[in-house]
Amino acid sequence: MKKISHGGNIYKKAKEMGIREEDILDFSANISPLGLPEHIRQAMVKAIDQTINYPDPDCSRLKEAISKEDAVSETKIACGNGGADLLYRLAFGLQPKKVLLPAPAFVEYEEALSAAGAQIEYYRMTEDFIIKEDILEQITEDTDFVVICNPNNPTGILTERERILRILERAEKTKTFVMVDECFLEICKNEKEYTVKPFIEKYEHLIILKSFTKLYAIPGVRLGYILAGSEKVIERVNRAGQAWSVSHIAQCAGVAALADNIYKEKVIDTVAEELAYMKKEFFKLPVVLYDGAANYLFFRTPKITDLDKQLEGHGIMIRNCSNYVNLGRDYWRVAVKAHEENKKLIKALRMILKGEE
Amino acid sequence: MKKISHGGNIYKKAKEMGIREEDILDFSANISPLGLPEHIRQAMVKAIDQTINYPDPDCSRLKEAISKEDAVSETKIACGNGGADLLYRLAFGLQPKKVLLPAPAFVEYEEALSAAGAQIEYYRMTEDFIIKEDILEQITEDTDFVVICNPNNPTGILTERERILRILERAEKTKTFVMVDECFLEICKNEKEYTVKPFIEKYEHLIILKSFTKLYAIPGVRLGYILAGSEKVIERVNRAGQAWSVSHIAQCAGVAALADNIYKEKVIDTVAEELAYMKKEFFKLPVVLYDGAANYLFFRTPKITDLDKQLEGHGIMIRNCSNYVNLGRDYWRVAVKAHEENKKLIKALRMILKGEE
Repeated sequence: MKKISHGGNIYKKAKEMGIREEDILDFSANISPLGLPEHIRQAMVKAIDQTINYPDPDCSRLKEAISKEDAVSETKIACGNGGADLLYRLAFGLQPKKVLLPAPAFVEYEEALSAAGAQIEYYRMTEDFIIKEDILEQITEDTDFVVICNPNNPTGILTERERILRILERAEKTKTFVMVDECFLEICKNEKEYTVKPFIEKYEHLIILKSFTKLYAIPGVRLGYILAGSEKVIERVNRAGQAWSVSHIAQCAGVAALADNIYKEKVIDTVAEELAYMKKEFFKLPVVLYDGAANYLFFRTPKITDLDKQLEGHGIMIRNCSNYVNLGRDYWRVAVKAHEENKKLIKALRMILKGEE
Repeated sequence: MKKISHGGNIYKKAKEMGIREEDILDFSANISPLGLPEHIRQAMVKAIDQTINYPDPDCSRLKEAISKEDAVSETKIACGNGGADLLYRLAFGLQPKKVLLPAPAFVEYEEALSAAGAQIEYYRMTEDFIIKEDILEQITEDTDFVVICNPNNPTGILTERERILRILERAEKTKTFVMVDECFLEICKNEKEYTVKPFIEKYEHLIILKSFTKLYAIPGVRLGYILAGSEKVIERVNRAGQAWSVSHIAQCAGVAALADNIYKEKVIDTVAEELAYMKKEFFKLPVVLYDGAANYLFFRTPKITDLDKQLEGHGIMIRNCSNYVNLGRDYWRVAVKAHEENKKLIKALRMILKGEE
């Protein structure tokens, strides 16, 4: 329905290519390589018979589980129909006039905030794509809202916690909301060193965006949440959308997800292992590789702008990054998937970029 | 999450009463008495394994099915996370300044439109709760948005199509959007005489709100759509929310629902039969009964304001209507459910209102 293009639209791509959706090897969306966990699948099947009732508008059980998991009071949690839903509710609920966005960053931030009338200013990252101390200069009394995506999407590059805390200190003075998008952080090996969750009580203007989509491989279900330093933010987010935004199936999936930590640990280990493997293989390719820490890799193929088209011939879909602000048509993002799939990608890239058979 | 109270919150009520949700006989939400259709249940179970992918942001298959069913071009359809989601997207997307709402009517209209900054004016219905010709006088050049709920919620009373067409004629002149909420109309025996779907191409300011919730007994899934006379409305609605608002499970449920007409006919027949039965029984009770046509009944028990509390003692939950504008605490709404359940309600009402054992 949107004009902009995101990763993961296998439906459109399959139609274009005249093949079945299941025959696409989709490296354009960054989802857990271990697939849908059986205990979540079972919770969803069980939930189906209860969909004859409206979902719990308060998401009571889910919020209780999140509250325990994140050690945050239930009054500082709002659940939504995926992280993107909460982004729009924040935009329409807080109505920020002036917003500071890092560039490049997830396209939907700008879509949501400008749909709600915000004027966008960019913190343009230079070639290393690192958020540096100079971002503080761009946070002024006029700035209503800042987004920090950690690790950043599409680069996968982490911002140190100390730097984010300095941004938060500044933002309390300028009365600027800081939304830290940690949707991909929980898949990173060193989540604990980077998350700002322990600071939710300290900074009134802090908002943390979280999703169940990536870690638990359920993007088709739609489930996300925010933590907010101020209960007023939660109230305004709730007011900017319907009472029943989280389906009963999604609520049950979320409760099941948080009841089990084994799957999470397995995903983190697998991603770390595969990320190392892919980096090693990518170094042998004629590409500029960035040192990402997320479950995706960001790279550049200077002057080669049709890598996606060439990979389509191998049934592989990747994410071209030209619709990110600050990036050209030779930047790409690929997911870290299961080993056999990653091998297929590497093999195809070798053929295309190095002419190997 | 909202402060206002809706029907159907069995989760909160069960907690209050210290019983299990499944032990509540819920007459407060108006859902098909035939329960979840098996073919939709199966489609949802099948869809679960595909939730490892993002949902189709274009809802292609669902829109194709709706387009056939309603004989409306796909470009004039937008799907959403339940009818209520579309209401908020319309509110934030069209940003109407001045809105005319009938009173009483579904509480969420006012919630959504005022959250988006609209100023609300009421068309106050008198004791018969009929929308009359004088509503035209309240539609002026200043009016940006009018809502007509047909049949009305909570009264169940229908507005004649000829009257709605006169409203639409007037609205084209005053450039006022008219949202006709037909969410409950498809369960009515005489849908074809009342629906304004055939006029979607004629009136640029016409918007029709539809839901899958009621007819197919899937409120827990979240699925609704709008038809709009103007493609610009569709664009603005799409822009006012995320790309993936409709879960993959909901899209598959919708496609399955529209592939089968037998269930729909059965629901309509059952509701018509049970509505007649309930009306007959209600006439024997000391209540003021209104002549609704929907799958719910609206009545008044002058001066008795604790009917809901008394019915709780029988494990029955009904909808008190005092949080509707223009209604007092002695107005009630009950769903038309399956025969055995309806009998239980009638029996309990006889005991409470007539002292019968």
